[in-house]
Amino acid sequence: MNIIEPTLILDSMKCRQNIRSMVKKALDSGVSFRPHFKTHNSREIGRWFREEGVDKIAVSSVKMAGYFADDGWDDITIAITFNVLQTHKINELLKSGKKINLIIDSDKPLDVLKKGLKYEVSIFVKIDTGYNRTGILSDNIDEIEKVVRSINGAGMRFAGFLTHSGHSYRATSRNEILNIYNDTKRKMDGLKQRFLSEYPDLVISVGDTPTISITPDLRGVDEIRPGNFVFYDLMQLALGSCTIDQIAVILAAPVISKNTLRKEVVVYGGAVHLSKEFISESSGRSNYGEPVILKTDGWGKLSDGSYVSSVSQEHSVIKADDKFFDMVSIGDIVGIIPVHSCLAANLTGSYLTLDGERIVRSIS
Amino acid sequence: MNIIEPTLILDSMKCRQNIRSMVKKALDSGVSFRPHFKTHNSREIGRWFREEGVDKIAVSSVKMAGYFADDGWDDITIAITFNVLQTHKINELLKSGKKINLIIDSDKPLDVLKKGLKYEVSIFVKIDTGYNRTGILSDNIDEIEKVVRSINGAGMRFAGFLTHSGHSYRATSRNEILNIYNDTKRKMDGLKQRFLSEYPDLVISVGDTPTISITPDLRGVDEIRPGNFVFYDLMQLALGSCTIDQIAVILAAPVISKNTLRKEVVVYGGAVHLSKEFISESSGRSNYGEPVILKTDGWGKLSDGSYVSSVSQEHSVIKADDKFFDMVSIGDIVGIIPVHSCLAANLTGSYLTLDGERIVRSIS
Repeated sequence: MNIIEPTLILDSMKCRQNIRSMVKKALDSGVSFRPHFKTHNSREIGRWFREEGVDKIAVSSVKMAGYFADDGWDDITIAITFNVLQTHKINELLKSGKKINLIIDSDKPLDVLKKGLKYEVSIFVKIDTGYNRTGILSDNIDEIEKVVRSINGAGMRFAGFLTHSGHSYRATSRNEILNIYNDTKRKMDGLKQRFLSEYPDLVISVGDTPTISITPDLRGVDEIRPGNFVFYDLMQLALGSCTIDQIAVILAAPVISKNTLRKEVVVYGGAVHLSKEFISESSGRSNYGEPVILKTDGWGKLSDGSYVSSVSQEHSVIKADDKFFDMVSIGDIVGIIPVHSCLAANLTGSYLTLDGERIVRSIS
Repeated sequence: MNIIEPTLILDSMKCRQNIRSMVKKALDSGVSFRPHFKTHNSREIGRWFREEGVDKIAVSSVKMAGYFADDGWDDITIAITFNVLQTHKINELLKSGKKINLIIDSDKPLDVLKKGLKYEVSIFVKIDTGYNRTGILSDNIDEIEKVVRSINGAGMRFAGFLTHSGHSYRATSRNEILNIYNDTKRKMDGLKQRFLSEYPDLVISVGDTPTISITPDLRGVDEIRPGNFVFYDLMQLALGSCTIDQIAVILAAPVISKNTLRKEVVVYGGAVHLSKEFISESSGRSNYGEPVILKTDGWGKLSDGSYVSSVSQEHSVIKADDKFFDMVSIGDIVGIIPVHSCLAANLTGSYLTLDGERIVRSIS
């Protein structure tokens, strides 16, 4: 690898293994697998899923739906409360025969959808199982019922209930994450049982990488939609969703300055490469990433005492332990494991594999 | 404006006024003006500076230097401690006759530069005046002298001393920012006086938007390099660097969900549009942006009680006061003033002006 500037490196073996593991887990649990493609946002990586038998996906924007539809994906959930201003864009996808699922959390969008859509679309009702971002609270049965009826009233197909238990990212133990999954399953299954006789095909769909990775058996839901697991990252490692060996992306960053007094190594590679996501650790420190030594065939272990203590637009400051500090010189390339791979990947136009291949991704 | 998805809006009148004000301030203070172009990273906006008589710039990457060099900029400082792995790329710029200034904070890069450069380059020595990111501490005269001598020894031109007083961003009062400027000026001038007889052309260069915006008279330095002032943002407003009327960019974001119980408005537009930068307010809350009502000719006042309380990849959650909550509906577009315009602008490929014109920017 001839790297001269900040570059997101992809270990494609690890990435493919993450995909295979999740496919197997879904199969073993008897649940349908609809991976969220927003993390990688790459047609080529999408094909790695297809090779494992995956045939339906979730995306986070209409543009992303079009990007993957054009690469042969026919069953796409646009997994964000639908932005009605893009209704006409959905017609283009439906016209070409794609199965598109939209999400709503009130009956407000239905008028616009009814007027604007020329083809049949399936609608999921977004349920809030505790994350408190969007969705109807799972115990607000009256409102849920009202929206389900309105979907039928507007002549659209009610597909089921969908949730994102994003509060798993705030959990402080593995057990708490298991509890979130079980609580989510219980709430979603309660809704399913209530509406099943009327809508025998309804699907309950859940998805967030921590609960899906940590829960051993996913039985009890119909569909899972994790996304981040394709790469994992430092946040998932801290949550216990993955091991260090499963993390598949890393930022390669040139060392541009060293400060012996403060034992700091400064690299070229900052917020415009990693994002400003950080982990608030119990010690009180903010951790923006962890440095490792890069090798030609991958990367080494975490350096116990070293971490990225701050990032500015193009710089990251690594608080280094003695060993790491002494090992690196100005002009070296070091690796930084990103806190949040979705955001770091979004900031790059392509991935460089360990074999030196460029894998293109779309811009959000 | 026919906006249907998250879009960064530019008020070009405000932007041009910010440029004119800074040009005038530099002129009135008798200092040379070398704006940092990393905030806008757009050739078209660069030309607005040229129309005001600006003829030299700072950039934050070799790629950005090439992007602007190709648009006729001939005097460019690459204002980041130089990444020696890109030495050969500098030859391409020098070969075409450009004046390029590089920055070092140790003598380590000089060997590589000496071997790799085929044309004359000017070198600034980076001084740490209190930010503690890169640079030699201003009172470490022995080290500074060693590096200056090494530049000459390597056959390159010593251009002067350069600093970025980024600790101004941590200041909690206007007075503290004024003190940082005066302290920076004193330290830099001390170095100038020490080396002036030997290097009569040496320049002291300072630059950070808070001190440069707030200090009424900039006399006492040779060159200023602010960048963010071209757009300003919520962080600069909080620091007192600008008024609300000077902020020139805003994210237009469609409303996709409302929660009456929590008085929250959720918009499509999140970390991949605004970044995850936030302001830690004295009240303890984290502020990721402030919502305003968008109008065809610009945007309204801040809504006193409303702010963005969290952002995830594509969502922002606005904690709304009653008035703002009642004014907006699903399908409306609201404006969000970004906390950090440099990072928000970096996440977009273009700006949309209030006249509906697309202004392209380069990707970092």
